[in-house]
Amino acid sequence: MKALQDYYPENFAHCYGCGRMNEHGHQIKTYWDGDQTRTLFTPEDHHIAIPGYVYGGILASIIDCLGTGTGSLALARERQTKLTEYNAPRCVTASLKVDYQKPTPMGTELEVRGEIREIKGRKVHVDAKLFANGVLTVTGEIIVIEVSENFGR
Amino acid sequence: MKALQDYYPENFAHCYGCGRMNEHGHQIKTYWDGDQTRTLFTPEDHHIAIPGYVYGGILASIIDCLGTGTGSLALARERQTKLTEYNAPRCVTASLKVDYQKPTPMGTELEVRGEIREIKGRKVHVDAKLFANGVLTVTGEIIVIEVSENFGR
Repeated sequence: MKALQDYYPENFAHCYGCGRMNEHGHQIKTYWDGDQTRTLFTPEDHHIAIPGYVYGGILASIIDCLGTGTGSLALARERQTKLTEYNAPRCVTASLKVDYQKPTPMGTELEVRGEIREIKGRKVHVDAKLFANGVLTVTGEIIVIEVSENFGR
Repeated sequence: MKALQDYYPENFAHCYGCGRMNEHGHQIKTYWDGDQTRTLFTPEDHHIAIPGYVYGGILASIIDCLGTGTGSLALARERQTKLTEYNAPRCVTASLKVDYQKPTPMGTELEVRGEIREIKGRKVHVDAKLFANGVLTVTGEIIVIEVSENFGR
């Protein structure tokens, strides 16, 4: 099963967070899971804040890319666009809010779930929940906006 | 001139964002600049969102570590603690809000300025502004909380 990010046009596929063509990046992937979206990510050993706990900037990054990925999925679904290589709409982040409810432990795969709160034109409002070993440790709220297909060219 | 992060005790010096002992990390540094704080950071070539523009997760990370660093500086100043190796208080992030006002261009050093909005016990509320070539591109708001010196041990 392909992820949303596998459908980005080449000029949108270099993101350090989720671009399939960024060999130094995190290669974050986002999938539909019912009406929610889902990203799995296992931090690397050096992605720590204080030993034993994941760095907040990495957690913010995962939530950021879940947000842009969810925005793209939501817009494609609303327009009844069948995703294919490489026609996915590309959103960028307008605002990102992350609340660290408790420390997120290292040494386990993290699950992030996205929920679409609202679609308004080219803007999508997404809520995110991040779990470590099934325990909610971080919540997030992301507002993303679709860019034109020539953005950055 | 030493940065705040140079004064963290060894167990708090491994942060992927700002730990001096994390060789894979960003090594973000925070300094007083009058009553404000300041961080300079030049993204690496692969830290892109869309070619030409900096990845939002990296911008969030810089603002995150500016926030924890500013919290530590603020608490040390309030307590009239003279910073020395290695007595800096260590804060962690409770919440991080980042608003991307406009795309942040690659190829230039970024300047982030922190302002202390409020200190309440062990909690510090920090406002951040990020500039590229002198242009404000991102604003942030961080709430950080001091942890005990044995946190994570």
